[in-house]
Amino acid sequence: MADKLMFASDYQEGAHENIIRRLIDTNLISTSGYGTDEICASARDKIRKACNCPDAQVEFLVGGTQTNATVIASVLRPYEGVIAVDSGHINVHEAGAIEYTGHKVIALPGTNGKLTASVIEDYIHSYEIDENRDHTVKPGMVYISQTTEYGTIYSKSELTEISHICRQHKIPLYLDGARLAYALACPENDLTLADLAELCDVFYIGGTKCGALFGEAVIVPDSNLIPHFFTMIKQHGALLAKGRLLGIQFDELFTNDLYLEIGQDAITYAKEITESLRAKGYQLFIDSPSNQVFFVIENDAMKKLSLQVEYSYIEKYDDNHSVIRFATSWATTSESVQALISIL
Amino acid sequence: MADKLMFASDYQEGAHENIIRRLIDTNLISTSGYGTDEICASARDKIRKACNCPDAQVEFLVGGTQTNATVIASVLRPYEGVIAVDSGHINVHEAGAIEYTGHKVIALPGTNGKLTASVIEDYIHSYEIDENRDHTVKPGMVYISQTTEYGTIYSKSELTEISHICRQHKIPLYLDGARLAYALACPENDLTLADLAELCDVFYIGGTKCGALFGEAVIVPDSNLIPHFFTMIKQHGALLAKGRLLGIQFDELFTNDLYLEIGQDAITYAKEITESLRAKGYQLFIDSPSNQVFFVIENDAMKKLSLQVEYSYIEKYDDNHSVIRFATSWATTSESVQALISIL
Amino acid sequence: MADKLMFASDYQEGAHENIIRRLIDTNLISTSGYGTDEICASARDKIRKACNCPDAQVEFLVGGTQTNATVIASVLRPYEGVIAVDSGHINVHEAGAIEYTGHKVIALPGTNGKLTASVIEDYIHSYEIDENRDHTVKPGMVYISQTTEYGTIYSKSELTEISHICRQHKIPLYLDGARLAYALACPENDLTLADLAELCDVFYIGGTKCGALFGEAVIVPDSNLIPHFFTMIKQHGALLAKGRLLGIQFDELFTNDLYLEIGQDAITYAKEITESLRAKGYQLFIDSPSNQVFFVIENDAMKKLSLQVEYSYIEKYDDNHSVIRFATSWATTSESVQALISIL
Amino acid sequence: MADKLMFASDYQEGAHENIIRRLIDTNLISTSGYGTDEICASARDKIRKACNCPDAQVEFLVGGTQTNATVIASVLRPYEGVIAVDSGHINVHEAGAIEYTGHKVIALPGTNGKLTASVIEDYIHSYEIDENRDHTVKPGMVYISQTTEYGTIYSKSELTEISHICRQHKIPLYLDGARLAYALACPENDLTLADLAELCDVFYIGGTKCGALFGEAVIVPDSNLIPHFFTMIKQHGALLAKGRLLGIQFDELFTNDLYLEIGQDAITYAKEITESLRAKGYQLFIDSPSNQVFFVIENDAMKKLSLQVEYSYIEKYDDNHSVIRFATSWATTSESVQALISIL
Repeated sequence: MADKLMFASDYQEGAHENIIRRLIDTNLISTSGYGTDEICASARDKIRKACNCPDAQVEFLVGGTQTNATVIASVLRPYEGVIAVDSGHINVHEAGAIEYTGHKVIALPGTNGKLTASVIEDYIHSYEIDENRDHTVKPGMVYISQTTEYGTIYSKSELTEISHICRQHKIPLYLDGARLAYALACPENDLTLADLAELCDVFYIGGTKCGALFGEAVIVPDSNLIPHFFTMIKQHGALLAKGRLLGIQFDELFTNDLYLEIGQDAITYAKEITESLRAKGYQLFIDSPSNQVFFVIENDAMKKLSLQVEYSYIEKYDDNHSVIRFATSWATTSESVQALISIL
Repeated sequence: MADKLMFASDYQEGAHENIIRRLIDTNLISTSGYGTDEICASARDKIRKACNCPDAQVEFLVGGTQTNATVIASVLRPYEGVIAVDSGHINVHEAGAIEYTGHKVIALPGTNGKLTASVIEDYIHSYEIDENRDHTVKPGMVYISQTTEYGTIYSKSELTEISHICRQHKIPLYLDGARLAYALACPENDLTLADLAELCDVFYIGGTKCGALFGEAVIVPDSNLIPHFFTMIKQHGALLAKGRLLGIQFDELFTNDLYLEIGQDAITYAKEITESLRAKGYQLFIDSPSNQVFFVIENDAMKKLSLQVEYSYIEKYDDNHSVIRFATSWATTSESVQALISIL
Repeated sequence: MADKLMFASDYQEGAHENIIRRLIDTNLISTSGYGTDEICASARDKIRKACNCPDAQVEFLVGGTQTNATVIASVLRPYEGVIAVDSGHINVHEAGAIEYTGHKVIALPGTNGKLTASVIEDYIHSYEIDENRDHTVKPGMVYISQTTEYGTIYSKSELTEISHICRQHKIPLYLDGARLAYALACPENDLTLADLAELCDVFYIGGTKCGALFGEAVIVPDSNLIPHFFTMIKQHGALLAKGRLLGIQFDELFTNDLYLEIGQDAITYAKEITESLRAKGYQLFIDSPSNQVFFVIENDAMKKLSLQVEYSYIEKYDDNHSVIRFATSWATTSESVQALISIL
Repeated sequence: MADKLMFASDYQEGAHENIIRRLIDTNLISTSGYGTDEICASARDKIRKACNCPDAQVEFLVGGTQTNATVIASVLRPYEGVIAVDSGHINVHEAGAIEYTGHKVIALPGTNGKLTASVIEDYIHSYEIDENRDHTVKPGMVYISQTTEYGTIYSKSELTEISHICRQHKIPLYLDGARLAYALACPENDLTLADLAELCDVFYIGGTKCGALFGEAVIVPDSNLIPHFFTMIKQHGALLAKGRLLGIQFDELFTNDLYLEIGQDAITYAKEITESLRAKGYQLFIDSPSNQVFFVIENDAMKKLSLQVEYSYIEKYDDNHSVIRFATSWATTSESVQALISIL
């Protein structure tokens, strides 16, 4: 462990110190299970306040793929599928978890990892005018993520447009916020949690990659959207017996705006790495404003790098080059970033 | 919190102090994700050793329902169902999670919450001689739990008989060990972990109810039984990103035989409560040797009790009486037990 | 073929001569597919009229198991299951087709193969008062069949009571009419098609066993109950390309009340066989008023019988006796019945 | 009915006269159900002989989508998906029936509606070298159709290459032969039924569009490939009670090589229509050798055409043009073709 510089992902360490402290402090307190305890109640209230959405339903689940499958399967009817960008997590990296629930992922082409309102609208329109639409999967949800798989972020105007299209066609919009803290910490970001609660029909605030040990908080602004959501969570094996562990973590993340700040260092460090890559003549694969840095590297250089640094291999670029990714996180240190830069 | 005496379940507190200490110590160490780290490797080795099963596949999942659904759906073919006792957890308290994966739970009548070899054999026999069996669900697995939903335990001879029937008919036997630590701590118990590894085709060692924050360790003695089990775990949303959290917990539980000892106080306290109930003239609903105490209480007395004690309501007994349950755990204190006894 | 007397089932022959004639007459006419043709339209109208239900949605599917799975999966939400009598077709003879769609069959004990209103009400009540109901499958539909698997029939007062319970709890009632023509032809029957349309939320009029080559007509009195039912039918592989074949058959069955008469001979013959069995001292297993005759036979006698007659083996009665079934049908001839009686 | 010229599809009429005659002749014969009768046995033998594959398992199902879902779900394991061309029937026109069984359709780009061996190989290769492949859907089957959705056909060398890739990677190859009779009747075709049995691991011989009322015959050359296939068919609601109806139809289609000849007129007429379109200056959308003719038409002309002819609308071509399709069939008459040509 830790012989190498670890930049492979943003889930390599434990949790923010506040969370660890709270775990210790509450360890022997007895509470009821399944999220019915007072700590969860407090966390829910803080999240509702942060989202400016006092009536929202807030449920805590354990991980991202689990949350996506549970939410999507709870909202869709059997004849419906979910629209996602072709590079979307649910389309490529969830081992078919969505299809396992019986629903098609309708993959549409992206722009910098993002869906555009016009691509969505064109697809829905083509469905609606298709004479054979009764023989095809009805688009029943739009899935996007903030940040995207390529670290890009939706602007308020982009999200507003998408939300508008969805509401026009009565299709719920779902935003996967596995890396939401990093989006919120980008200087380029102009979307608040309250905006998300206004523009999305469901979204989740990611804990696992954003300072928690684990955990994702699902926000349903209109609490009538998903009947029997608790039972659906149970059915998906996503109900934590000691639900308070999720309450503890989100209660801490939403104390003193910790969630809004926790991604800031990661952004600063990612920009440092990006600048350094640029300065050293590396070609960026995509211009990401958040905590993921994608770039092109010559294969021999990659091999050498791998002896000292853990990174993520993304894809072949050409016969002699590959695309790799560094990810920074709330736990990244200045020292490791300087060490990385000096190696590059 | 904790205004009342809490005897409703065995998942009301955090984790054993060794686990908390290890979480603190490892918090900022960087490791790879998804259980590929060295702590998980160490925990796997310790479990293999404790089970005397050096080639077993060991996978860590988060919770019980999730583990049951993932294991059962990974072993069964679509035309198969899983045999369980009618009071079994998968049949009544998992919100249809097994059926959600497409498989029938074939519920058979129990004796003190247990399946007997002869009930299983009769069912399989009736299937095999049924001329219409091609129109029915093939029994493809037998599910039991240790302890059962009623706190009873299988003896070595009972489990051996069941295992024998299963192997004769090439039907894998799966044991749900959500409360295994409490079974192992019963003086009446004569089954070791090594016995389970020999007699079962899959089983899990429960963490959530047995001193961990969460987590269940699945043991597959013949590692060829479930191809692509890792992907199945991912597909079920059961793959923890920071897998090391599971490794940490099981590594501690399997250091210095902690898992074998952690249930002992709970058993002692449960027996104290049982004796006290008997002495005070309460009727036991079932004679459980483990950490759950089921008894009959007059409804008005129950109402009064509920002001001071959290318990589990089980079912109506007659018009004036109900069955309720107390559960002790690794975290139960002598003081709370004495307080409970004095209230009864 | 036909060396033996064939009393094993009611789907051993082709179709009523009117249907065959219509197939010949229409064979080379060109129509649009998938049930959008004029013959289907005509059949739908006739059925709506026969059910006194001018706004009903009427859809034609191919077979019974298919129809049950499609209807049930279209009505239930994922957290719901379907109540059925333990001997119900969906619980025992559909190879787990309902569970395959993700839903539990909640099997309740029967009386002469029938569910009673009080058994249903007790179950729903126990669900509603269960403190852990959020961890269990919600009853979301009641399934019954007319006739039942044991050939018994619901009376108007029995069905009215069940319907009342269902509506009180907002649980749709679904009636499987695979053998409905035989129920309608029983002298004991007091339920009309119009009654079914009034008391049930969905039901199907069986064709396969009642004079058609194949086909079941699903009636949904409130056409808003199942949104996108057509797409659900397609998704279940239950949409016949040449849908007109179903239209042709039901158009004939609902011309000049053929469906109401087609089961009459079968009932007459079944009663003859029953009387003869009684007279010869056989023990009836159940007193069925419709076209199935269940009785107890000594095993050696059964073996001898099997050389001359095809019957259905039902179950072991005791070590020396078995329960077997004869079924008559619209195609049964007086000669074969006399031959059977003389053999018995 | 039939006021217009009907060129919308190849399932607009009943069945070949030989089939109708046989239906009449056998109508009142009694047989056992579910395809266990002697007529089905005879049909199976004839098909095995025609495929030069004496040990093949042959099962009869009712329709195409049903057959695809049943076969694919029976072969795949839960962690696997099926590769198909993006225009493939299972990807676009089966209402998500494959995903409903829990499996992803992995859509790859096509060439004239066909998959190429190199596109398949590239995808499998990229899966096999992907470091994250355990988080993705494993390709577990390749699905192609003959003819394709665009009426094109695979040559023997193309199919051989695809088969070779599949076997190298132990991935079963499945060929959907809904329109196989039309492929076999193309002068360009060099693939026999025996070739299909040698090169594919499963395929089906289409009846519905090729002269039968309904029905598809699934051929599994290695009868061990799909254990408990009968039960899977039942579970999918695809088991016809009066299975003999399928036996009758395929027995006739495989008497005196009827299946090999039945598509010939359709091909002749399609080529006539194609020539006529070319001569009149229409742009063909794709050069199909079989019974489907795709071409581009000006929108106003299309509207006018629709008053006299039923066709299939395919897609928008540009703002002023559309792509439409004519389909000929075994039932198409010379008169209707001449009438169509004179209208164009």
